[in-house]
Amino acid sequence: MLLSDSSWPEIQAYLSHSRAIVIPIGSTEQHGPVGIIGTDAATAGAIALALGDRTGVLVAPTLALSVERFNLGFPGTIALRASTLMAVVIDCLESLAAQGFETIYFLNRHGGNIAPVGAATQDFYFDWSSGRRTGRCQCCRFRNWWEYPEVDRLRQQWWGAHEGLHATPSEISIVLAEQPTSSRLFNSASAPLARQAPTPIPPGFARDYGGDNHFEARVRQQAFPDGRVGSHSMLATAQQGAPADRKRRLRGRRRPPGADRRLSSGREETLR
Amino acid sequence: MLLSDSSWPEIQAYLSHSRAIVIPIGSTEQHGPVGIIGTDAATAGAIALALGDRTGVLVAPTLALSVERFNLGFPGTIALRASTLMAVVIDCLESLAAQGFETIYFLNRHGGNIAPVGAATQDFYFDWSSGRRTGRCQCCRFRNWWEYPEVDRLRQQWWGAHEGLHATPSEISIVLAEQPTSSRLFNSASAPLARQAPTPIPPGFARDYGGDNHFEARVRQQAFPDGRVGSHSMLATAQQGAPADRKRRLRGRRRPPGADRRLSSGREETLR
Amino acid sequence: MLLSDSSWPEIQAYLSHSRAIVIPIGSTEQHGPVGIIGTDAATAGAIALALGDRTGVLVAPTLALSVERFNLGFPGTIALRASTLMAVVIDCLESLAAQGFETIYFLNRHGGNIAPVGAATQDFYFDWSSGRRTGRCQCCRFRNWWEYPEVDRLRQQWWGAHEGLHATPSEISIVLAEQPTSSRLFNSASAPLARQAPTPIPPGFARDYGGDNHFEARVRQQAFPDGRVGSHSMLATAQQGAPADRKRRLRGRRRPPGADRRLSSGREETLR
Amino acid sequence: MLLSDSSWPEIQAYLSHSRAIVIPIGSTEQHGPVGIIGTDAATAGAIALALGDRTGVLVAPTLALSVERFNLGFPGTIALRASTLMAVVIDCLESLAAQGFETIYFLNRHGGNIAPVGAATQDFYFDWSSGRRTGRCQCCRFRNWWEYPEVDRLRQQWWGAHEGLHATPSEISIVLAEQPTSSRLFNSASAPLARQAPTPIPPGFARDYGGDNHFEARVRQQAFPDGRVGSHSMLATAQQGAPADRKRRLRGRRRPPGADRRLSSGREETLR
Amino acid sequence: MLLSDSSWPEIQAYLSHSRAIVIPIGSTEQHGPVGIIGTDAATAGAIALALGDRTGVLVAPTLALSVERFNLGFPGTIALRASTLMAVVIDCLESLAAQGFETIYFLNRHGGNIAPVGAATQDFYFDWSSGRRTGRCQCCRFRNWWEYPEVDRLRQQWWGAHEGLHATPSEISIVLAEQPTSSRLFNSASAPLARQAPTPIPPGFARDYGGDNHFEARVRQQAFPDGRVGSHSMLATAQQGAPADRKRRLRGRRRPPGADRRLSSGREETLR
Amino acid sequence: MLLSDSSWPEIQAYLSHSRAIVIPIGSTEQHGPVGIIGTDAATAGAIALALGDRTGVLVAPTLALSVERFNLGFPGTIALRASTLMAVVIDCLESLAAQGFETIYFLNRHGGNIAPVGAATQDFYFDWSSGRRTGRCQCCRFRNWWEYPEVDRLRQQWWGAHEGLHATPSEISIVLAEQPTSSRLFNSASAPLARQAPTPIPPGFARDYGGDNHFEARVRQQAFPDGRVGSHSMLATAQQGAPADRKRRLRGRRRPPGADRRLSSGREETLR
Repeated sequence: MLLSDSSWPEIQAYLSHSRAIVIPIGSTEQHGPVGIIGTDAATAGAIALALGDRTGVLVAPTLALSVERFNLGFPGTIALRASTLMAVVIDCLESLAAQGFETIYFLNRHGGNIAPVGAATQDFYFDWSSGRRTGRCQCCRFRNWWEYPEVDRLRQQWWGAHEGLHATPSEISIVLAEQPTSSRLFNSASAPLARQAPTPIPPGFARDYGGDNHFEARVRQQAFPDGRVGSHSMLATAQQGAPADRKRRLRGRRRPPGADRRLSSGREETLR
Repeated sequence: MLLSDSSWPEIQAYLSHSRAIVIPIGSTEQHGPVGIIGTDAATAGAIALALGDRTGVLVAPTLALSVERFNLGFPGTIALRASTLMAVVIDCLESLAAQGFETIYFLNRHGGNIAPVGAATQDFYFDWSSGRRTGRCQCCRFRNWWEYPEVDRLRQQWWGAHEGLHATPSEISIVLAEQPTSSRLFNSASAPLARQAPTPIPPGFARDYGGDNHFEARVRQQAFPDGRVGSHSMLATAQQGAPADRKRRLRGRRRPPGADRRLSSGREETLR
Repeated sequence: MLLSDSSWPEIQAYLSHSRAIVIPIGSTEQHGPVGIIGTDAATAGAIALALGDRTGVLVAPTLALSVERFNLGFPGTIALRASTLMAVVIDCLESLAAQGFETIYFLNRHGGNIAPVGAATQDFYFDWSSGRRTGRCQCCRFRNWWEYPEVDRLRQQWWGAHEGLHATPSEISIVLAEQPTSSRLFNSASAPLARQAPTPIPPGFARDYGGDNHFEARVRQQAFPDGRVGSHSMLATAQQGAPADRKRRLRGRRRPPGADRRLSSGREETLR
Repeated sequence: MLLSDSSWPEIQAYLSHSRAIVIPIGSTEQHGPVGIIGTDAATAGAIALALGDRTGVLVAPTLALSVERFNLGFPGTIALRASTLMAVVIDCLESLAAQGFETIYFLNRHGGNIAPVGAATQDFYFDWSSGRRTGRCQCCRFRNWWEYPEVDRLRQQWWGAHEGLHATPSEISIVLAEQPTSSRLFNSASAPLARQAPTPIPPGFARDYGGDNHFEARVRQQAFPDGRVGSHSMLATAQQGAPADRKRRLRGRRRPPGADRRLSSGREETLR
Repeated sequence: MLLSDSSWPEIQAYLSHSRAIVIPIGSTEQHGPVGIIGTDAATAGAIALALGDRTGVLVAPTLALSVERFNLGFPGTIALRASTLMAVVIDCLESLAAQGFETIYFLNRHGGNIAPVGAATQDFYFDWSSGRRTGRCQCCRFRNWWEYPEVDRLRQQWWGAHEGLHATPSEISIVLAEQPTSSRLFNSASAPLARQAPTPIPPGFARDYGGDNHFEARVRQQAFPDGRVGSHSMLATAQQGAPADRKRRLRGRRRPPGADRRLSSGREETLR
Repeated sequence: MLLSDSSWPEIQAYLSHSRAIVIPIGSTEQHGPVGIIGTDAATAGAIALALGDRTGVLVAPTLALSVERFNLGFPGTIALRASTLMAVVIDCLESLAAQGFETIYFLNRHGGNIAPVGAATQDFYFDWSSGRRTGRCQCCRFRNWWEYPEVDRLRQQWWGAHEGLHATPSEISIVLAEQPTSSRLFNSASAPLARQAPTPIPPGFARDYGGDNHFEARVRQQAFPDGRVGSHSMLATAQQGAPADRKRRLRGRRRPPGADRRLSSGREETLR
């Protein structure tokens, strides 16, 4: 159930039996020569919708603009400051709290969002913790898609070292399944840039740069000139990104329910 | 051409012949008993896409969260503070400026965005005007959809006084054409709330409250308990919202090109 | 009744029978070769005082510093950021709310203030709308002087196309009536710059730049090198700016009551 | 020479021989039963004008709204947050710097402004000091009127212990000379509140509360219920506030030059 | 080499051969019945000093106030907002950048700091990435003490499941070695609260609350009424916290060099 | 009693008989060729501890980072923006208020902190004064160490004109007593820079620059190239900085109680 596609009386009815909502959060940044700029937003939305279809939880609009200034050297990337995303998150929480939502679940697809969303919820709680506000506060949960055990297992099983960290075959597989026309990029003028496997990322890289703690855009672009970070994007297939059960219950904006999707089912979570 | 659905080499190529981009900006707020909460975001996106298809201009992701705190009494509305939207807009402008975009065109569908986007561009220009930054600044243009002369003429011709100010038959017509499943709301449990024509808005109302200068949410909700503001939403039809030429060139996320759409063509504008 | 010229017991007494206050808001920016930099502040103050004298409503100090960064290329212009004016407005509202004022009427003389004051009141209402604050909020009304029907009629009747958009004969007429010594500018060294009628503003200009949505200062200065925007300032006369009844009830800082002033009476408004 | 009463070509000419400007800064707060709320703003403006007339330095518009939240218990007080005044001051400095002003002199009449203006200039300088900005920065000087040796001597000579700290006979004398109609307050309904000498302020009070380091408004109001702080306001006379030479060179808004004013001459300062 | 204990000519000399600095970052929050409130600050400082002694890198003053609002229910905790810590970090980076430091290494002892320091560095880099600033930016590295492989191995080997998450025997051991008088807490009136092993933390707890993503203070206090989170603090010993080589090269504030300290050597890092 | 060295049950017990706390506030900035960068922080901490030992009042962690951008030209100085220190102070006040502290006493050692701490407390009180918050607010007191009459008398008696304004013999004497190893600087390579008495500061300097109202760093560094401002630092002796009674009750981090210290006793204050 998508909040955007519902009327206010439908949300009012929803609140009579559930107080939970999922907020998908992605990015608008380069995803290599054969990945679309909206990869994170599209996959976060698809996974959240699958989660919503399976558990009945409401899904908020995807936060498509987020924190990715380190990719600003690649045309098309649009980045928020961390402080801006914090303000967006806090205003969302204020709005939802005013209407009785109690459990907010951020489904995240982008490393650069981890710090700002965490900092935002810290500040949202501050007023309650310091006694400025009274009453019961909301519970915010933040989960990175790649932390789901089943997802992580599949990523390792299917692509191993080629999965890498950015423009990964796993995320591009989901995009291929969701937006089939994006397959044109595999035959585009820039596809040859992605034909070679990228240089493997050095050991310790994930520890040093986890959560997208990269330096400024120029440094990043010099290190990864085609935009991929250790990921062999062209190993992606729509088949791997698609749900096991391809029969789709059509509803709303023709998005697939994905109840049995393997990479995008969000199966691990049980939300109230 | 949707930025989200493009790769970074495609945007790089685009920048070699054009420096313009359209940013659709909507809202996430109640639109009466038979309108979806995402009405403004969906219509802003559709009109921007039609404009993009007709003129070749690039279309950024729709800003779906905006300033609508006066509707927070209706469940499902998610509102940003004006200062938050200003930060989002400024960060978008910074990002696009860094990549060479020179003409930014905000295509707006929601009155409450007028003040914050205007204030944001004022502050974006401040640093250049005060000598803090050098070089040529970007040109920002802001246009409300309802100001297009042809659109306004059709609205008056088709619905006259029933067009009203919120949950208008014009915007809901476009949604019906874009997302056909939303027609279910016309037969939903809350549809009877919208069966009667709303009380006409008093003279002077638009002058007093233009740009959504409403008071707090409770006052608003008491004045308009079903969410419509002088608009007879149920007069909307998919036919009126659809483009004249229904043959659609499919591309990307199966969105229609709408080159000849009447309400949503954005025909008045010529963008570089 | 000017708040600045009153004692606190007088304001206490005023609050026992009225909860309304007018805040005049102007600018500190160039007004062409024969207009003073304080034109907007002086005229906003004079009109507000006339409104106050006629209706008995209290008048706050004029906000003389506002948002006009696009004029920073002209020496003497002092501009606030939009975010700064927003903070000023919000603090004024907080102060007045704490003392029981319920109706705040902004009488505006400067296009650049429209967006920031609108955004400020949106954010002021946010805390009530989101449930952060309880109780009844204040009602804020914002009105541009040039929107008064009688004022607009006189401007068209007397100056027609020569009225223009900045350094208009109408505003300079009021200044000439209020501050007679400013007539020296008509014979000053820079007066020749204003002797010629300015180039007419192109069609669509008001639509594109309404609310002072100008680009940075340099662009503006190149387009309008003497500071006038389509206005033939030297057509102004003290007679047209003066009230019909020149007999003045002297009070406070020797400001005229202006009860019958034509351009500056603020006659259209009835305030509690 | 008042900036507000000048045209931009006049300011351009001024800058060819001087780079200095005085910014008077006052308050909008209660000044006891017989003092007007605009006392600080009016006296700061008058003293600055006298200083300007004597030295030829340009005078900016008076900052009438400042930091006086501790007086919010008295109706009519309008207070800014310290952070808001800081933003106002920084924007003024940015604007003036962009036009070539190099010496900014704050002439202050209100203790509560000392901290925020000081903090604002600290932050204005930060960008130069940290290497963020290059070039030569402006020089800001801040002076409290009561620190002028001659002023302080007269205050002690004429009123001694009755001068006190707020609603002082010295400041009300200047107001009586500047705005003669304010003398009506000496015969108003609230005048009896000020007939008695106030309780003397305890030793150490100035040390503890200097710079208006008062607690919240309620505490302040309980301690000083009529608004005076150790000041016997009714000892003020227009004669003591007036300049020695009453012949006034009329100019602009009929403000007196005050070249020989004793309390308000600002004689100690020599500005470039 | 402690920055605080050096003179500016010494830092100038240091910069001629190294551009690196370590910033220890702790907290000021409850650490259970037998841990001092300054535990994180003291241990971060000690470990940084050991790292500095071993590698010759300069050590900045410890950031003792950080983000721990979830512990505000326990008296003595002082918490910053995340946005405040971000401002502190950014100002430190600005200051150090202005003097030529190029490598900034945050040595962290407190989970709640991870998000705000990450968000701060993202925003610090934004200006370079968006083209607002030019030149080479600093490299910021952030490391949690508990991520050092040797440290983590010792923690598991010595305390296993009793190590827990807060008021851990490992951190209290270092404090006992650094500040021997803190051992008095083991015999204090509140020591009995810590005598029992705490309830083990449930599986998944670290995943849900990693980085101190706790809810508001009341919820936290109800869940962990004595302040320990799965940690058996009383298993701490000064011997385990002390360096292998107890001979200390005395210098500066009599802090131990700790070159061979096992828990606090920071041995894994090699800094320029 | 140091908050950092106490457990939360100890603070809970303290609050049962006292509601006061001292916050020492220093700086991290150059103190001339023979003064350490941490001079202000070390002396503020020592004096606060002496005050605490004598009166039993609790002592918070020293705020070591503060506002000293004018010294950024000297390597090792780390400066906060005034707005950042304001945020730190406000968060401290929020935290302490939530736990029942009612009297907050800032013991200051650095002129540049006066304005920002004053502005912060103004804004902290704003919410109470405007009616945003209810209940009784805390009382904040701010005192500069050099204002203590006995301290000031000793400074004049011992060093007279050589005391000066920065890197004073008085402050360096206290450091020599507190951190004896800092005496090495008197024989360091840079000591010759401080051997000569500095040029005396001109009359009026303290009036113009009081509260560290200095211009940007470069101007400051040119005026005082070795960092001393009229102070003959090498006249400092550990004997003068030490307490009269050298027998020290050892406790916590081996800091001296200083109950009879002459320069650092804080003897003038009696705190609840």
